[in-house]
Amino acid sequence: MQVLVMGAGQLARMMALAGAPLNVQVLAYDVNTDTVLHPVTQQQFPLTLAQAVAQADVVSSEFEHIPYPVQDICQQSGKFFPNSTAIKAGGDRRQEKQLLDAAGVANAGYRIVTTEAEFLAAIAALGLPLVLKSALAGYDGKGQWRLKRTEDAAAIWADIASFMADADHTLPQAIVAEQFVRFDREVSLVGARNAKGDTVVYPLTENHHVDGVLAVSLAIPAQQQLQQQAKQMFDAVAARLDYVGVLALEFFQVGDQLLVNEIAPRVHNSGHWTQQGSDTCQFENHLRAVCGLPLGSTALVRPTVMVNILGEDQVDPAILALPSCHLHWYGKGKRAGRKMGHINICGNSVAELAERFVALAQLLPAAQFPEVAEVAAKLQQQA
Amino acid sequence: MQVLVMGAGQLARMMALAGAPLNVQVLAYDVNTDTVLHPVTQQQFPLTLAQAVAQADVVSSEFEHIPYPVQDICQQSGKFFPNSTAIKAGGDRRQEKQLLDAAGVANAGYRIVTTEAEFLAAIAALGLPLVLKSALAGYDGKGQWRLKRTEDAAAIWADIASFMADADHTLPQAIVAEQFVRFDREVSLVGARNAKGDTVVYPLTENHHVDGVLAVSLAIPAQQQLQQQAKQMFDAVAARLDYVGVLALEFFQVGDQLLVNEIAPRVHNSGHWTQQGSDTCQFENHLRAVCGLPLGSTALVRPTVMVNILGEDQVDPAILALPSCHLHWYGKGKRAGRKMGHINICGNSVAELAERFVALAQLLPAAQFPEVAEVAAKLQQQA
Repeated sequence: MQVLVMGAGQLARMMALAGAPLNVQVLAYDVNTDTVLHPVTQQQFPLTLAQAVAQADVVSSEFEHIPYPVQDICQQSGKFFPNSTAIKAGGDRRQEKQLLDAAGVANAGYRIVTTEAEFLAAIAALGLPLVLKSALAGYDGKGQWRLKRTEDAAAIWADIASFMADADHTLPQAIVAEQFVRFDREVSLVGARNAKGDTVVYPLTENHHVDGVLAVSLAIPAQQQLQQQAKQMFDAVAARLDYVGVLALEFFQVGDQLLVNEIAPRVHNSGHWTQQGSDTCQFENHLRAVCGLPLGSTALVRPTVMVNILGEDQVDPAILALPSCHLHWYGKGKRAGRKMGHINICGNSVAELAERFVALAQLLPAAQFPEVAEVAAKLQQQA
Repeated sequence: MQVLVMGAGQLARMMALAGAPLNVQVLAYDVNTDTVLHPVTQQQFPLTLAQAVAQADVVSSEFEHIPYPVQDICQQSGKFFPNSTAIKAGGDRRQEKQLLDAAGVANAGYRIVTTEAEFLAAIAALGLPLVLKSALAGYDGKGQWRLKRTEDAAAIWADIASFMADADHTLPQAIVAEQFVRFDREVSLVGARNAKGDTVVYPLTENHHVDGVLAVSLAIPAQQQLQQQAKQMFDAVAARLDYVGVLALEFFQVGDQLLVNEIAPRVHNSGHWTQQGSDTCQFENHLRAVCGLPLGSTALVRPTVMVNILGEDQVDPAILALPSCHLHWYGKGKRAGRKMGHINICGNSVAELAERFVALAQLLPAAQFPEVAEVAAKLQQQA
């Protein structure tokens, strides 16, 4: 079986590694270079997109910012999972917010803003503070602003207007103005849905971001009530999209309530811990879902922490001497801030995990791994 | 880092899959076709063996029947792990028996036989029954005979003589005549040794063979005394060979005593369960050892069973709906008796594993999977 993935980054790479044992061959289409390649070896294949789509048994995706003409080719093949509606909802915050409302899942109050008048109206309607997010191509903290005080509105609008003017989009840009949520934690739920509508979800993961980029994910046994709440929202969103594949929901937790912050119609960075900590990793479950194979168990086998490696192509090899510590490099060239790889570390209990995580943090320079030591120390206090 | 593996079969393939996350690129040299290729994608590289060896950081092996001239090229590179002495001991039962004696580990009494006179002398010295094994190129039950009664000696010698005459070897063939061991179980120990001499071993695995070919391996918590005994033998053999990489020892268990049956200087079929059941799989640990990275934990995370898929390129996909059941296909063309893939299934306890294993066995046709149902039933009785 052959699966063609839109996007040729680390997610396609990890799908290819998870697919090989299932005899699922994963090829990747790099939308930037218009080439078809193997996402592990980088071997190129002399295929056009149309030829690669025709040849594949299944077409899937590793990211949501796929140009619409490319999505159209995928969608018209009748074998694009998840479908283009889901991908577009992940790539456009307007559609995402409408989806969340339509699915009836809690999310922060918002207004769509394209003019200064709408911006001012949003401030009046929603109050301050506000988070302003570009509807298109905003991710990992880019294209986001915070407005805390009325007197900053003009300056921030100038910045936003400049961003919108500069943006090189074939689609009309807009801003989603959202009520700032004073959350207690950021958590996410990764799960899979198959074509029959069955769903499985992993345990809720606690995420720590630095400058809008995921730094650490903790997968430890989740509170039952929160897990159920998240699962209900997952099912509602996935059903609404007639979703097939792995889907991630990112939440703000406020007290014991979850609000959906955003969705990712794909395998997700906050699910990388599943490679060591769960029975079936998210990459395998995505392929199982899109290839029509039974979904695999999402049970937490061992409490696990994932630490992102950003902008570095080396870490102290001594980390591999820590029990249950595993490295996952993406084989990418070094660039500041780039997601280069991640580290998974497990324990047989949360206490053991915390102890190992503290030991790991001591081997990771704080400058390159901000907040890791703090998150480790906090986990140890809790455990 | 690049590792060139002698042999391009499933073991090199699984090394490549385990190596990618470590940024270890595995290429394979197919000794039959004299080609260098990627063992997952089969992409060929226009390299001679000498060029591929020169380009690689490390040279390793997935099998022991490597032609000596090829081994010489590898050994002369100064980066061949495990070394040629170890590979040759695995590929020649004469050297293997001498190694076991030199390492002082218990093994069945034997004589080397090349003539009928030596054959008769071996019968007189060792008694009956005897197992007769070709020194070279005998594996998976091929090139083996059993002599139970004196009156069959002439007929069996005729067969052996014919086998030795037919054998197309550049090296002198011989027969190892071995005392038949009335064993209670067959078990194996897979472990890794690094260049500094550190060793780690996985839990002792119980193996079930059908017609000399491994059918099922059970990895459940081992008896401490047996595990220690096996570990001592592993350390003695590995030290004697100045071994670097993963090494497997196969044992006969007689009461609470272990006798080494044979060694395999490589990752081993009876260690495939480590992909799901252990912290670090044998393929990753082999690469860690040969690349000078810290060895990974060999802890049993969950009791696990491995079932070989022989001669079949399909199994009922419903097995993937069983909790903790994982398929590992090798991407090979179907051929009777060929190792095509394996199934790993885990449980959180031996009892849970046994229950799942029985459910798995019910989905595997007995004709294609002989003894699987029996082994599952026996495990359930024990659990």
